[in-house]
Amino acid sequence: MSSESQELGITESKSHKPGEWYAEVVQKAGLADYAPMGGFIVTKPRGYALWERIQDALDGWFKETGVDNVYFPMFIPESFLEREKDIVEGFDPEVAWVTQGGHDELEERLAVRPTSESIIAPFMADWTRSHRDLPLRLNQWCSVVRWEATETKPFFRTKEFMWQEGHTAHADSEGAWEEVWTRLSQYERVYEDVLAIPVLRGKKPEHDKFPGADTTTTVEALMPDGKSVQGGTSHHLGQSFADAFDITYVDEDEDERTAYTTSWGLSWRALGALIMTHSDDQGLVLPPTIAPTQVVIVPIWQEDTKDDVLEYSQDIADDLEDAGFRVELDDRDERNPGFKFNEHELNGVPLRLEIGPYEVEDEEITLVHRPDNEESVADRDGIVDSVDDHLETIFEKLYDTAEEHLENNIREADSPEEIMGTIGKHGGYVKVPWCGDEACEEAIKEKVSAEIVMQPLEEQGGTTAGVPKAPEDDDAVCAVCGEPADQLAYFAKSY
Amino acid sequence: MSSESQELGITESKSHKPGEWYAEVVQKAGLADYAPMGGFIVTKPRGYALWERIQDALDGWFKETGVDNVYFPMFIPESFLEREKDIVEGFDPEVAWVTQGGHDELEERLAVRPTSESIIAPFMADWTRSHRDLPLRLNQWCSVVRWEATETKPFFRTKEFMWQEGHTAHADSEGAWEEVWTRLSQYERVYEDVLAIPVLRGKKPEHDKFPGADTTTTVEALMPDGKSVQGGTSHHLGQSFADAFDITYVDEDEDERTAYTTSWGLSWRALGALIMTHSDDQGLVLPPTIAPTQVVIVPIWQEDTKDDVLEYSQDIADDLEDAGFRVELDDRDERNPGFKFNEHELNGVPLRLEIGPYEVEDEEITLVHRPDNEESVADRDGIVDSVDDHLETIFEKLYDTAEEHLENNIREADSPEEIMGTIGKHGGYVKVPWCGDEACEEAIKEKVSAEIVMQPLEEQGGTTAGVPKAPEDDDAVCAVCGEPADQLAYFAKSY
Repeated sequence: MSSESQELGITESKSHKPGEWYAEVVQKAGLADYAPMGGFIVTKPRGYALWERIQDALDGWFKETGVDNVYFPMFIPESFLEREKDIVEGFDPEVAWVTQGGHDELEERLAVRPTSESIIAPFMADWTRSHRDLPLRLNQWCSVVRWEATETKPFFRTKEFMWQEGHTAHADSEGAWEEVWTRLSQYERVYEDVLAIPVLRGKKPEHDKFPGADTTTTVEALMPDGKSVQGGTSHHLGQSFADAFDITYVDEDEDERTAYTTSWGLSWRALGALIMTHSDDQGLVLPPTIAPTQVVIVPIWQEDTKDDVLEYSQDIADDLEDAGFRVELDDRDERNPGFKFNEHELNGVPLRLEIGPYEVEDEEITLVHRPDNEESVADRDGIVDSVDDHLETIFEKLYDTAEEHLENNIREADSPEEIMGTIGKHGGYVKVPWCGDEACEEAIKEKVSAEIVMQPLEEQGGTTAGVPKAPEDDDAVCAVCGEPADQLAYFAKSY
Repeated sequence: MSSESQELGITESKSHKPGEWYAEVVQKAGLADYAPMGGFIVTKPRGYALWERIQDALDGWFKETGVDNVYFPMFIPESFLEREKDIVEGFDPEVAWVTQGGHDELEERLAVRPTSESIIAPFMADWTRSHRDLPLRLNQWCSVVRWEATETKPFFRTKEFMWQEGHTAHADSEGAWEEVWTRLSQYERVYEDVLAIPVLRGKKPEHDKFPGADTTTTVEALMPDGKSVQGGTSHHLGQSFADAFDITYVDEDEDERTAYTTSWGLSWRALGALIMTHSDDQGLVLPPTIAPTQVVIVPIWQEDTKDDVLEYSQDIADDLEDAGFRVELDDRDERNPGFKFNEHELNGVPLRLEIGPYEVEDEEITLVHRPDNEESVADRDGIVDSVDDHLETIFEKLYDTAEEHLENNIREADSPEEIMGTIGKHGGYVKVPWCGDEACEEAIKEKVSAEIVMQPLEEQGGTTAGVPKAPEDDDAVCAVCGEPADQLAYFAKSY
């Protein structure tokens, strides 16, 4: 076992070995551990606290916009999964199956839910009789299991992951579209306002939609290593599930009609994006909006100054707590200030207040803030305002850095060579005119494992909802095959 | 399909057919539905909202008392489950097994967690090095699966159920005992202060402990039908899990020691107890502490009075909302007031405000409150205080009724015949001196399916923590076998 001070340091470099660096930050900042079974992780207190903040934000917005929480069984009978053909084709290869209950073989295998449309839709059918029952908006916070054989990457690639899944039914397609945008906007808002990560909104190409969906919309976030993260998806499911599960209603003229449904989900991958975007070689960096501890106070004392320093520190801690900040006073005897500095940096506390005898004497406080360890001195009197300003500045710095990175990494290309060259050299997004043929994407994917992660949309709502934006030039041709191109596509490598 | 007004009514009687009545209330009040697989239920919005209020209360208290939330995998490898022998013996007959992932057979079966000690303990071992790491307090909100072949009873008996499971490690047994009492007290508090249900505290008999536990403590609630509900349990696990999983630490003298652990859980059975305790033949009855809607305003108008009535109603709704009450103004056009009264009674809204043209004119409001439909009139001016008083009164009425029922249903007995006679005639608890021999319980259980559900404890804390209370009479003899009895036991039928 290495010594504790060595354990504190991040040894890998974010720029040189982003994968190893990420795994080290996750473990050393106490966010997650690897479970004994490949593909599973244990979410530790500091990791779970971040997930709770995302939950709190989204759950509040969902409830404000008419969504009710529910809980459906974690198992889905095989015969239910088979009722919507795209779902069974899409998920069958990666379902974990319960086949035994106690000492008995089950008569019918039960799927551990990979997503819950197939168990929720039959109840939607039951609960929807009249147009007055619509829209019906349900959400559940749970975990799902997808048995993928890829390498484990905490929060990005795990066989079990936590998420929320929303499921709604509407009288018409327009209502379903409105729902799709509402949820996509809430995902955008959680990334931008809570996680300090700007995102791009768009749709997935037709061949990469959610199984059973008419349209899959997405928010995409660009990571510092140039790869895109699918940050959350909101699906217009058309009538595929309504047809398969008989979700019909009687309209105002007493005619029976088939409903339209949507589903939308955001997983703990948002935590992966958060960690990856802002953190550095000192450890986790968190925007104050989500940091469980926003301010840590580290008192620095000798025996003869201890009482004064601690009293002064406690007083400030009380003031900040009263003002609503999440504060920790780290008065541990057994650790020296240097150790504490490193530990709180590693753990992503945005703002550190250092208080020694000089600060007490001068009625001042030294402030050091992440991400750049900028140091400043503030008066004791105005400490609440100073802390507020600093936290705001930290958020802005993090957001601006991420935004600049995003803006600088959307490039255009005219040929397959240029697409591949740009992706190879810079990463990021390459925006191209595209003919819409999957084969053109495949040609790029085979060579540089980049794919179309997003297509910007013409408009949101109205009759062309879900139609991808056209190239500005009417005579545009596909950057891959040279045939006429009526839509734009963003290529990128992705997580 | 029956007409909507028929559907609204509860047709079964609580006193004559409590089982059927319960099932009807659960479904008609929109709390839960039966899933297609036997033993599973779907928790609907109104049911889940109740669970969320229990979660909010407990989660807040847990956090105030040093508990961190975490999330462990829902699967436990068979070899881990086997490491603590009592756990595997206790749960093996009721484990759901995942044996296939995608198209492949798994090399090792994975248990869908029936409880998580066996996957959490090895990580506690990892995370506990020094006495400074203790106490370690973890909790997770999740569902677990136990494949029991009994009849489904929503919230009481389901193969999958929602709960929280707390897991802690301590330097010594005293620390573990303190934890056990803290959590038991929080369970008592959630029953008494949130659910308006008085409970009895005690321990389970030795032969009925949680697998691997030294002592299982419990809060028991008496239902109106005379059966006891195990409301929540808090286990002193001694060193059984610490030994099996090597949870050791280095103490202040640099000696290696084995830790002591606890676990404690409260499930959605609390919802079952809530529904069963207070509800009646009109439907669900909820204390205002947990009711998602505390006050419903039903305006009563004719065409010519509509505007005035609605304006006055809206104004009152705003006042009440500003004062922090959870209010609904039911201004639906398509339903008449009688229908609304029935519906809100069925759904358990504690207080109804009726507002018609006379109320507007006289600046008054008619209030009708559950559980007894007591009607009164209040002045418009003091409506906030009046509502507050009424809600408090409703809580007290519910609590007092339950308390009286509990107090009147603890009886004593001296012989097996008397125990069985009393249980048969009255239900409730029968308090007896007991020798401690399981055979004596078995003799009663065989004949009247009543068992020892609880033993009151001598004291909480100190050297005799966990020791059952002795009979007052030093020469007491076991009510079943007549041998000397050194402990008290409560027989009851149970859920």
